[in-house]
This record gives sequence, C-alpha cells and structure tokens, in this order.
Amino acid sequence: MKISRRGQVPSFKVMDIMSRVAELRAEQRPVISLSAGEPAAGAPADVRQAAIDVQTSGVHLGYTAIAGRAELRTELVEHYRRWYGLELSIDDFVLTTGASGAFLLTFLAAFDPGDRVALACPGYPAYRNILQSVDCVPVDLPAGAESRFQPTVAGLEAEVAAHGELQGLIIASPANPTGTMITPDEFSKISQWCRKNDVLLISDEIYHGITYPTAPKTMSAWELDRNHVVISSFSKFWGMPGSRLGWMLVPEFLRNSVSSLAGNVALCAPHTAQLAAVAGFTESSYAEAESHVATYAANRQRFLDALPELGFGEPAPADGAFYVYLPLGRMAERYENSIQYCSALLEEKYVAIVPGLDFDPVEGGDYVRVNFAVSEEDMTEAIERMIAFNKI
Amino acid sequence: MKISRRGQVPSFKVMDIMSRVAELRAEQRPVISLSAGEPAAGAPADVRQAAIDVQTSGVHLGYTAIAGRAELRTELVEHYRRWYGLELSIDDFVLTTGASGAFLLTFLAAFDPGDRVALACPGYPAYRNILQSVDCVPVDLPAGAESRFQPTVAGLEAEVAAHGELQGLIIASPANPTGTMITPDEFSKISQWCRKNDVLLISDEIYHGITYPTAPKTMSAWELDRNHVVISSFSKFWGMPGSRLGWMLVPEFLRNSVSSLAGNVALCAPHTAQLAAVAGFTESSYAEAESHVATYAANRQRFLDALPELGFGEPAPADGAFYVYLPLGRMAERYENSIQYCSALLEEKYVAIVPGLDFDPVEGGDYVRVNFAVSEEDMTEAIERMIAFNKI
Repeated sequence: MKISRRGQVPSFKVMDIMSRVAELRAEQRPVISLSAGEPAAGAPADVRQAAIDVQTSGVHLGYTAIAGRAELRTELVEHYRRWYGLELSIDDFVLTTGASGAFLLTFLAAFDPGDRVALACPGYPAYRNILQSVDCVPVDLPAGAESRFQPTVAGLEAEVAAHGELQGLIIASPANPTGTMITPDEFSKISQWCRKNDVLLISDEIYHGITYPTAPKTMSAWELDRNHVVISSFSKFWGMPGSRLGWMLVPEFLRNSVSSLAGNVALCAPHTAQLAAVAGFTESSYAEAESHVATYAANRQRFLDALPELGFGEPAPADGAFYVYLPLGRMAERYENSIQYCSALLEEKYVAIVPGLDFDPVEGGDYVRVNFAVSEEDMTEAIERMIAFNKI
Repeated sequence: MKISRRGQVPSFKVMDIMSRVAELRAEQRPVISLSAGEPAAGAPADVRQAAIDVQTSGVHLGYTAIAGRAELRTELVEHYRRWYGLELSIDDFVLTTGASGAFLLTFLAAFDPGDRVALACPGYPAYRNILQSVDCVPVDLPAGAESRFQPTVAGLEAEVAAHGELQGLIIASPANPTGTMITPDEFSKISQWCRKNDVLLISDEIYHGITYPTAPKTMSAWELDRNHVVISSFSKFWGMPGSRLGWMLVPEFLRNSVSSLAGNVALCAPHTAQLAAVAGFTESSYAEAESHVATYAANRQRFLDALPELGFGEPAPADGAFYVYLPLGRMAERYENSIQYCSALLEEKYVAIVPGLDFDPVEGGDYVRVNFAVSEEDMTEAIERMIAFNKI
C-alpha cells in the first residue's frame, strides 16, 4: 500500500523531548519543562466555572452553526473594540478548531497546488508543514537580528525577483520561536506591498496580549486592511490549548469558501469550549490572564539577567510570546548541536528546553528555544540548574 | 484577491433548513427538527459528570500526546474486544477532532492530487467535498436498492474498466443518509478486492452500535484486514457531536505519516473531551446509550408503520443509523422537488426534514432524509403533522 508524497512532513523534534519528559516523570525525576508552547497556568477561573455550568445546565451540546455560537462571536467583537479600537461585526468571525484549523481552512480556501506562500525563517514549523501537506510551496524568507527576525519588504522584493510571484505571506508577531515583533511601520509597508502585489497576508496573532515593556505597539492586521486574514486562538493569552478553540477574521471575498470548507472539513469548533470561552472576557478573566503575563515578564527578566552566567549567545529581542530563542554560545564548544545539548541538559539536570531545528532546518542546530510560561519558582530553579550545568 | 479553485465545494442544503429552523424557533413556532445528523439526547450522565470532575480536579489541560491520552485509547482497546472480539493495542488508535479530522488526515496521508477515491452515491457529502478540497477525485459508485445502496465488487470492477484504477474506497455501514448496511459476505469480498487491487479501504463506522433487528451483522473493517483504515467517533452512539472527538485505527504503513500530519494539522484532539469520554465506557454509559437506540428503534417502527398514510415511496432498508431515506412518492405530484417539499412542510407544519440533494446531486431531488433520533413524543407528533400535511 502506498503513502502519499505530500504527507511526508517532518515530525517535531520537540515531541522526542516531550516523550522523554513523560518517561522521566514516570520515574519520579524532578523535571522542569520549559519546552511545549503552552502556558503552565491554565484557563481563568471563570472559564473553568463556565465549563462546569455548561454540563450542569443540561444544554444540548450538538453541532453549532459553522461559524460558531453567536454569543462568543459577540464577545470577540467587544474584545477587538477593547484591544484595537476596531468596530467589527459577528459576521467577520469564524470560530475554528484552534488556530491550526484556521490555517488549514485559509490555505484551502485561498491557495491552489503550487501556490507559493512566504514565511519568516526561523518560524513555527506547522506553517510550512501544513502548506506542504496541501500541495502549496512554503517559501522561506531568511530573517535575522537586523529585522527582528521578521520579513521585510526588501526581502519580499528580493524573493519575487529571484524566484517569481508569491500568492501568500504569513506574518507572526509576536513570533514563535523568537518572541520578536514587527514594527507598526514595517507591518504597514508590508500590508501595502501585499495589496499592490495581490498577495494574501495571513496574520498569526495568537500571542497578542503577551508582550513586554520593550515591545513595539501590538497591531492587528485588520487595522491595516480587511482583505488580510487574521488568525488567533484561546490557547496562549487565555491558557486554553487543550480546548482546541481558535478564530479567524475572514475577508469578504473569502467568506463563502471558508464557510463551505469549514462545514465539510470541521463541521464546527468544539461546542463546550465555545460556551466556556464566553467567560474568558469577564474583567476577572482579563485580570487573571494579565497576572500570568506579569509572571512571564518576571521570568523573562530573570532569564535575561542570568545570560552572562548561562553563557548562551545574544537572544532575539523577545518582545512578546513566552519564548527566548538564542544561540548556544559557548555551549557550542562542548556540544555538536542543540539537539545534543538539550538532550544532555534533560538527562543530567531534568530541565527540558527545545532545539532550534524544528523552527529553522538550516541554522536551528545552533539555537535553542526556552519557554518561560511557568511559575516563578520553576523558572528560578530551572535557571539555577542550567547555570550549574553550563559551568561544568 | 483570488479564491482557490479546489475550495469551491458546495455548502450543505441542510444548513438552509437549519437556519430557517433557528428563525422559526426565535418566533416561538413549535418546530420539531428531524434534520441534523445528531442525536437529541446528548452524552451519557457519566460523561457529563466526568467533564465536571475534570474542571474541579484542576488537572492541567494542555496539549495531549498527538495520538491522544493513553487511558482513553486503553478504553477503546477494551471496547473493540467487547464489540468485535478484536485484540488491539493502544498504538493502533489515534484520537482525532471528530471523524471529520480523521478523514482529512487519512486523505492527506494516503492520497496525492489526482488520486481517485470511490464512494457510494447517495452518500455523506463531506466525503466528496473534503476529497475535492485536497485535490483528490471523488468517484461516485451508483448504488441503489438492489445492493442496499452499498458498493459492490461488480460496481468497482465496472468503474475501473470504464475509467481506470482507483486508489481508495470509502465504505459506510450503516450509511448516511440511507441507514443501510453492507452484508458481511459482500464486505469481505470488497476487502479482498481492495487488497488485490492495492486500493485503500476506508471504513466509516461512526454509526456502529445503532442497528435494528432487521440488520445484517455489524462488522469492523479490521476484522477483515488491518491494512484498512477504520474511522469512528463519539458523536452518534455516545451522543457527543459537540465534543468533536473521534478516532481512527491506523494501518502500520500509514502510522508515521498520520502522526506527523496530525501533529502539524491538529496538534491533538480536544483535551477535556478526551478525559470525559473515558466515562463513555462504564456499564451505565453503555446502558444509557443503548436505551437511546431503543428509542430510535421505536421511532423508526412508528415511521415505517405510518408509510402508507404518509404516501412516500419505498425507503431504503434502514438497518442502522437513525435515518430513513425515501422517495417523495405521491408528494412528487404536488412538488417539483424535495427542496420545495421540505420547505413547504417546514413553513406550514414546522417539521424539518432534509432534501436528498446534499447526498445525491443527481437523483436527490426526488428523495428526503428523515432523522428519528428524537424523543418518542416528538416523533409521534411529527408523524401526525406530516400525515395531515401530505393528505391535503
């Protein structure tokens, strides 16, 4: 029996780390995991209570409308007013099975096989892997410290001149794995370039709300142009990755396609999660989520302060999300690559961080990603162990 | 800006009915909906309680392993022993975002653009629409009363002779919209034919457990050959469509591809639902689900007994699922097609049933699908209204 060519996408290296973490924990080892892209704190109390209320109320949990329940989309309208000053309608929103579901729907609705979609490298690996699995061509835009690891108009122009037209561009700000953000000025220039060149701009905004004092202003792509696609999720700021609930802002011209595809491919987003997430917009939920961001900020500063002792290289400017992405620095003298370093750190000090190869197949062997969305106690302890380990 | 060619899949006609049902209910009309493919009763009490316990326990609801939580896959191993006498391992199972998520993963893992996948017509429209959206070619196998609306080896041979090789075949037994089942003998012949011809057999088993005294023996495709793909879900027998939780049995040769794709496209199935669904396998949950099947059986018999008075034509042999699919019969004299009939019935008598065109774009204008997964009171009342309406 055959397997498909397009289905031969790489698995994530982080999964090997996660499996080993599970094994070590089963052996009662005191593992601190700074690896998976999920906050340790979980959903706000109001959301957890709402999930209980849903079950006790006996409400019928059948399929929802394809775009999702109106009361949650109404809360999202209010949220965009609060955060961005945008006046939207519930018809602009489609609730999806996580941001992942939204990426898939967007790629299927907007792109045909062979279409070229650009994205920053390093970047979230599922972008390129989902694109490949639906026969699009992911186009890496090399992005380094000089552009905050973000795409630039100059880079896009160079790519088009060298290899031909693009049909799409993915912007992630704050980005995974670097935590870097695009400046409003550059974002605006890229938006205009996309409009001029008929390129669909897809803006991954799942880390919005998680930014630090150094950050440029957070901007939604819909502040620039409603022909862009915005994708977001309850997984990060609201700490609900297990709910698999996200949303997208869909331009008019894509709306029928997205709706028809969603009705066939997904039917609807998880129903209980839709009902519970309504409580994610209470003042208490905002305050709780923001208190977690304050913890991340403290953890981040603690880690950055320890950098001289840790001996890693200069990190990307981690203005948002909950990651630091940085070169092995003097650890590169002792380890052939970041996979070896991460493995040794986990086995000897029970601290799990992630090698960069998931995010950048070329340069990632020299980089690691550290997730600081954990408690202050865990972060302090993890830094101490890493300092001790790196000193040897 | 462009929209993709492959994304131009039809929306479901049933959605127009559902929207109108929502409007009429908002106007306080006494609508009885026999339309959507979801049971009215909901999840077993143990599952609802488990969902509450998950939230009160404070367990961390991050991402699960790609294949899903081991305790739920362990329950599924036991379930396959109980229902089919099969000895499986948890590694055979991947939990998915509904059966929909499993179909998408299977098509991406096994098929490349242009691959031809056969399926019975009439059939569940999302099969062909998902196939189209990922650039495969859905191949309709005409299937009528003479073969219980199921594919046959003869039909497959004829299709291959006329149009060339197939790469895949979807079997659904019990089927949507007909409720018909394939006989073990024909299923076995088709299984052998698929093996011989290198065709991937994908068996949709989401209606297993919902069968009636007239039915042939229910058989899982893995009783025949573990190189077939089995897809199932908690949406029907367990009454949990809003949970978006399904599973697949993955042949060895597809396992790496499915896992890598799932890790990129979905990350994992909804976490709370995975924990709650463990309680779907208590004796009490089985008993509760089976009591709903007893209700469906009574409703089905009531409807079949009323057929002479209703004036519809001869239905497909509805051996399982919770549908009757039948021709308009003498109603065809008064209505141009089933869309007009369904619309008039809804507007005048507030009974919602579904026109056949979603399931069969050619002949479906002459057919309707009636869903009887409702309470006995609602079914009795709906039949009375339909008899009164059809008599006029």
